Amino acid sequence: MIERIAILGTGLLGTSVGLALRAAGFQGSIEGWNRSPDQAHVALTMGAIDSVAPDPLQAARESQVVVLAVPIFATLDLMEKLACVLGSEHLVTDVGSTKAQISAAGARLYNTPQRAAFLPGHPMAGKERGGAALADAALFREAVWLFTDDPEAQRSPHSASLVKGWREWVGAMGSRTLDLDPARHDELVAWVSHLPQFVATALSALLEKEVGDAPELKDVGGRALREMTRLGASPYSMWRDIAFTNTEAVATALHALEQRLAHLRENLRTPELRDEFEQANRFRRE
Amino acid sequence: MIERIAILGTGLLGTSVGLALRAAGFQGSIEGWNRSPDQAHVALTMGAIDSVAPDPLQAARESQVVVLAVPIFATLDLMEKLACVLGSEHLVTDVGSTKAQISAAGARLYNTPQRAAFLPGHPMAGKERGGAALADAALFREAVWLFTDDPEAQRSPHSASLVKGWREWVGAMGSRTLDLDPARHDELVAWVSHLPQFVATALSALLEKEVGDAPELKDVGGRALREMTRLGASPYSMWRDIAFTNTEAVATALHALEQRLAHLRENLRTPELRDEFEQANRFRRE
Repeated sequence: MIERIAILGTGLLGTSVGLALRAAGFQGSIEGWNRSPDQAHVALTMGAIDSVAPDPLQAARESQVVVLAVPIFATLDLMEKLACVLGSEHLVTDVGSTKAQISAAGARLYNTPQRAAFLPGHPMAGKERGGAALADAALFREAVWLFTDDPEAQRSPHSASLVKGWREWVGAMGSRTLDLDPARHDELVAWVSHLPQFVATALSALLEKEVGDAPELKDVGGRALREMTRLGASPYSMWRDIAFTNTEAVATALHALEQRLAHLRENLRTPELRDEFEQANRFRRE
Repeated sequence: MIERIAILGTGLLGTSVGLALRAAGFQGSIEGWNRSPDQAHVALTMGAIDSVAPDPLQAARESQVVVLAVPIFATLDLMEKLACVLGSEHLVTDVGSTKAQISAAGARLYNTPQRAAFLPGHPMAGKERGGAALADAALFREAVWLFTDDPEAQRSPHSASLVKGWREWVGAMGSRTLDLDPARHDELVAWVSHLPQFVATALSALLEKEVGDAPELKDVGGRALREMTRLGASPYSMWRDIAFTNTEAVATALHALEQRLAHLRENLRTPELRDEFEQANRFRRE
């Protein structure tokens, strides 16, 4: 029943959504828009979209489902603009990494019987480098796709059915869905996603200072070092918005890790070190 | 010219050495000993060793090259015992993760014309879980195998040729060798190996406390979280000795990371965050 999708933002995630929809058998039209048209043309060449839209609002108007796949502040900006031009025949959803502000904007601007539906989404998938060229039809396979839908949403039957349809396509792309309250979402991802990213960034930046001038020494660390610093390649342009919209939860998680590292450091020669390894082992038990 | 090798300690590394030697075409005999004989029998079944030795000293005496593949304090203990029973027809080498104490013991107990040669070694390869059953003939491929040999070593021509021969087998197992001063080795691995391990341990232990009771939330983190906590499964039994024999360098590295995390935390909403990401990006530039 969903036949016309607009993907606004054809970077890594947006382009991967297009590819994954096609791989899952989506037969309808997919129009793509990107602030830099060259990325939209890469997505077109890869077969992720059928056509490049010159204007995001017009592409949205012509579609049933609008997928916002841009950084968080750009998502909030597009949400404002789209709310005025879309109606109850549309669903807008997103892939942003923090959900409190986006969900609040959704409740304020969408989800009345006259307006478009808004379904806040967050696929837990990505790569340390962005861009359409790295997009992958399998990116969402075996990933968890979080939703922070508003139980108070008052939707037209039509837009409610689009929500149901989009959830089914998410499943068809290979993801498991999980519904969370927006505040709980932001707290949870601060621990399991944002903390690992900021640790990798701090570790990579520190190692650049310590051994960055000696490439042969970077190789010494082997696979373990490569894994622990892979996310060090992640772009500021994406993480700036995450840091800005989940500051308190991220700061709490970082502070807790600082204390944990200090505790470990002070106990390198005491039996407390055993407790720390045993607790870590429990996290990784299979 | 090396025809008889004894591997003392047939855990993950020792058993992998046996398998890698065979894969590289080593035709001589490999005798294995392990404190728990069941691990030696696993190594035997896997074809990593030809026979299980009941006594490490006797196995060493009968071999030309003795590979110590046990934790660091057990290595130091065996080095003491072997020094008295071996002579200039032998080479002893090891795979320990810190080298200052082991190299000092080597200079004190070995490397005179009458005594066995000692070549301190450290392959930068491993897995987060130990044991013979996980051993892998390819473990050392494309790894760096560090040596901290003593330039003052006074060796018999015979034991000097065993040193040369062992270095060749290390190359045949697929590793690139790199020679470092022992103190510089311990400082370097504190940054590129021990720091990543202790960070993964602290992060895993912290996350076990925060989300350990909700397995479905651990999955949310996806590949990034799995990578950043893989080393959380590493055993205390091995890392205790590393923490004990490289305490100062590890504490320095941990303290530097704590400060870096605090700096990042205090700048989640300032342009300093961009600098941190850019420095991290430089570490991962390709």
